[in-house]
Amino acid sequence: MASADSPMPYDGQVEPPFTSLPQPYFTSPAWHRRDVDLVFRNQWLFAGHGSQIRNPGDYFTYGLDRESVVIARDMDGTINAFHNSCRHRGSRICTEASGNAKAFMCPVHAWTYGLDGSLRTTPRMDVDRAMHPAVPVRVEEWNGMIFINLSDADPRTVAGRMDRADLAHFALDRTKVIHDRTYVIRANWKFSAETFIECYHCALNHPTLLGLMDPLKDMEAWDPRWVKDDLLIFSGDISGDFMPGGRSFSADGQFKCRKPLGDGVDWRTETAGLGWYPQFGMFVSPDYAYTMSWKPVDERTSEFRSTWLVHEDAVEGVDYDVGEVVALGDLINEEDLRICENLQAGVESSGYRQGPYHPVFESPVSAFNYLYLKQVGDDPIIAGTTA
Amino acid sequence: MASADSPMPYDGQVEPPFTSLPQPYFTSPAWHRRDVDLVFRNQWLFAGHGSQIRNPGDYFTYGLDRESVVIARDMDGTINAFHNSCRHRGSRICTEASGNAKAFMCPVHAWTYGLDGSLRTTPRMDVDRAMHPAVPVRVEEWNGMIFINLSDADPRTVAGRMDRADLAHFALDRTKVIHDRTYVIRANWKFSAETFIECYHCALNHPTLLGLMDPLKDMEAWDPRWVKDDLLIFSGDISGDFMPGGRSFSADGQFKCRKPLGDGVDWRTETAGLGWYPQFGMFVSPDYAYTMSWKPVDERTSEFRSTWLVHEDAVEGVDYDVGEVVALGDLINEEDLRICENLQAGVESSGYRQGPYHPVFESPVSAFNYLYLKQVGDDPIIAGTTA
Amino acid sequence: MASADSPMPYDGQVEPPFTSLPQPYFTSPAWHRRDVDLVFRNQWLFAGHGSQIRNPGDYFTYGLDRESVVIARDMDGTINAFHNSCRHRGSRICTEASGNAKAFMCPVHAWTYGLDGSLRTTPRMDVDRAMHPAVPVRVEEWNGMIFINLSDADPRTVAGRMDRADLAHFALDRTKVIHDRTYVIRANWKFSAETFIECYHCALNHPTLLGLMDPLKDMEAWDPRWVKDDLLIFSGDISGDFMPGGRSFSADGQFKCRKPLGDGVDWRTETAGLGWYPQFGMFVSPDYAYTMSWKPVDERTSEFRSTWLVHEDAVEGVDYDVGEVVALGDLINEEDLRICENLQAGVESSGYRQGPYHPVFESPVSAFNYLYLKQVGDDPIIAGTTA
Repeated sequence: MASADSPMPYDGQVEPPFTSLPQPYFTSPAWHRRDVDLVFRNQWLFAGHGSQIRNPGDYFTYGLDRESVVIARDMDGTINAFHNSCRHRGSRICTEASGNAKAFMCPVHAWTYGLDGSLRTTPRMDVDRAMHPAVPVRVEEWNGMIFINLSDADPRTVAGRMDRADLAHFALDRTKVIHDRTYVIRANWKFSAETFIECYHCALNHPTLLGLMDPLKDMEAWDPRWVKDDLLIFSGDISGDFMPGGRSFSADGQFKCRKPLGDGVDWRTETAGLGWYPQFGMFVSPDYAYTMSWKPVDERTSEFRSTWLVHEDAVEGVDYDVGEVVALGDLINEEDLRICENLQAGVESSGYRQGPYHPVFESPVSAFNYLYLKQVGDDPIIAGTTA
Repeated sequence: MASADSPMPYDGQVEPPFTSLPQPYFTSPAWHRRDVDLVFRNQWLFAGHGSQIRNPGDYFTYGLDRESVVIARDMDGTINAFHNSCRHRGSRICTEASGNAKAFMCPVHAWTYGLDGSLRTTPRMDVDRAMHPAVPVRVEEWNGMIFINLSDADPRTVAGRMDRADLAHFALDRTKVIHDRTYVIRANWKFSAETFIECYHCALNHPTLLGLMDPLKDMEAWDPRWVKDDLLIFSGDISGDFMPGGRSFSADGQFKCRKPLGDGVDWRTETAGLGWYPQFGMFVSPDYAYTMSWKPVDERTSEFRSTWLVHEDAVEGVDYDVGEVVALGDLINEEDLRICENLQAGVESSGYRQGPYHPVFESPVSAFNYLYLKQVGDDPIIAGTTA
Repeated sequence: MASADSPMPYDGQVEPPFTSLPQPYFTSPAWHRRDVDLVFRNQWLFAGHGSQIRNPGDYFTYGLDRESVVIARDMDGTINAFHNSCRHRGSRICTEASGNAKAFMCPVHAWTYGLDGSLRTTPRMDVDRAMHPAVPVRVEEWNGMIFINLSDADPRTVAGRMDRADLAHFALDRTKVIHDRTYVIRANWKFSAETFIECYHCALNHPTLLGLMDPLKDMEAWDPRWVKDDLLIFSGDISGDFMPGGRSFSADGQFKCRKPLGDGVDWRTETAGLGWYPQFGMFVSPDYAYTMSWKPVDERTSEFRSTWLVHEDAVEGVDYDVGEVVALGDLINEEDLRICENLQAGVESSGYRQGPYHPVFESPVSAFNYLYLKQVGDDPIIAGTTA
């Protein structure tokens, strides 16, 4: 495998698929199951931001498929994650989506767990408590953001995977979430992932975005350096794509929060785009950051989530207006949602044929397909031959 | 096989099934799939009437299962049909149920198709357009009505199949649709098809119809001439069944439109009943025509559609009142809907037993079952033995 | 097998499972199907009370899975049960949930059945009626309650199975139903069955019940005498668990109906608890009786039904108030419903582990699991090993 410092074109001579994926990838319940197990259960997933559980005892739950994971901040500030299932009879331990607690008491027989998932009390029952903690889930805080990993295998850390991304100057660990929205999309998650990663569709669908940037300007075909092991990793500045004078990811390119994100940021700092695809992506402008993450629901339904972050000391109504910060991202998300639903409906047709990708504008989709097919164990060449 | 002029009793000596079908035909998802693929995808389906896309650029879409087919009238008057799926990434090309357009622009990347489905423009992308038209669907206009056929095989034409039906004097190509209703039925489509084809149930369920006709009077057991190849074809006059003085298919037998359908029609013209079963049926009285068509949704849900046609120059409020034209057919459809739902619920029971058909009154159901079983490749003898 | 009089510990040395069941028992559609077929179709099911069809011609229908069974009282007082499916084409014969009828006329072609399910008339059709009755379902009235059995095999009678239970003094055949409620639970039926059979959860969830009794006081580990053949049978007095002065199953232990159930009852009569599990259970206090029964809907949904019975001559507003009689049972049912839904949600987790049962308090759950596993043909040892 290529090391982090010497990226290698995926398997040497192999070309990525040049056409859209075959129909069953978007319509088969069995392939949905495979996506959940091989793509989403094996990677780091964005669960939320540390500021959402700022105080000891704060918690929230994160769901994927039928899973529920409790993510809680301990008294010493540690963030823990564990399966929301009692070791006695299996009940949910935590029945609220978020809150503050000293401990989690199972609502059935009152077995009680600490904020770290350890089993503390089992009323009137003699149990080896040390052997029966809530089953832990791997968790990592990276630049203030909380990621979990449901894999049983020993994955590398987020920090290790994202070692090329230097976000320190943005001080994202000192931000707060001002908006957190989940969009339910009546389409397979891959339509959403594919749409987000290319801007050939922007001309027709995102007129407001085009006031800020021409994403196709100077675009080049996909770059093998995007691939790292089995992930498609983005990391770089995107301000170069902005129209003259554009400084932030907003409709007019102007800052929407008066307080810069971090001490290392000034108003000339470049907007960063980064993520490992398709689990997580984000933009970071000097004034605010914006995350994107995906979740399959069933073969024809998915969820897309965005959060918006500003400096933790920024004051609403003084430094920023939520609606203004959120406006461009939320608009784009809504516009993309319609695209995804038209793609799903059309690909259901027996008249669907795998079609050719634009060799430059859609090369990121090629790259995503290539990595995705590797993750699920399919041969990219067979799945994506030119129609 | 029998020629059109020398009908042959189905396979010589073989008798049609004499009992209702076994339970799984009405309850199994797998058998629903088989019905869609072997019965509905292999036959001509009524998609609408030519008057519904009278002008160049007019279009509507037709759906079956998860398919969407665009049916559009070209500038030269030709009617075209093609799959509603872009050859680039598969999106729906046409997102409205009906309308008027000069071309269809895919809402994702603006690839644009002509009214004939040809690929016209692919913005900023070099594509062999001649090789990437929207995938065509076979379409035929017959007596003003539009039929499509999703089969890849080369089917014979509607006109060829219906060569015994002479409707020219009704001039159905010069009519217009005054009402178009789809009934959602919580029952397998075969209950609806079986109910429509027999009138043993009329005594109890269609009292209004019985004012017009006694459908059981002089009825004879099923006639092998109904069978043509793998279809059950009806064609004949039904006025003979009307009560004395009855001239039109209406509750009182009187005309509900003052303008006769065609120049070849006078008020003494017989009411015709025709169709190929179970895809399409119609009644044509001198004053109006009435279509019926079926569509499976899932093993326990179906759609039944009726349209009502009058002369294209008839004027509402002067020559006809929509409610009066529609009244009898709509009432019968509603009454049959309840029957179908009781049949579905009852056949779900483990106490369901295949029951005997009436040898005369239900012989059309026998015939339908025979042809249906042939279409799906089952042995009519095994499926329909007397309980 | 053990005789009724010499109960035998289940298969000699075999221990019941000591841990909760594996996940698929609660989440698999295939295993749901197995539960329906092997647990519910093979046992006597509580369908209602004789007083609900007190008069000749009275009837109600009972549903399980997609079945519908008509239960009707004949002119001579006999109670009959038969499948709600016409022997002609399979339609429901009876389309109302309850009512009074002289006969059941199929709504499609008017075939008519007697209150005993015999086929009486087949208009205009020559049918061997004696050979085509509505398919009968085994039915038994026991202590005034009506049970049906969908099994084709020849099961023993309710009276035979419950021969240890002497309820004669309660005269339950002379009661009436004053409340009949079905609770829809978004959980597998086994969570409801398991929750009902143990009271370790009561401390946290049923504070009102604890005012009446401490169900854990003097509790002992499970008793092999509970097992009879393949059923878990309860029968005994529970008044001994009541707080001092408690006489009836009510929040304050006081009677909620002034009229005792039977002539053989006085106010010192013990409250009886009995049933065969998991199909049926009941409590009988001197003043009222309360039934419980379960029904799987799908792997993640179930129905729980309770009826409340008082003496048939008791007068509402004089002898009793419905709300007061119903209060405790209904409250407990509502409280248990929440528990079941938390169990279902938690057991869905990949972090679910089979957990240990309390050796005494949850021994009835062990016993239920043991019998249940026998009924579905699984090895209790493999399914329930300590985690």
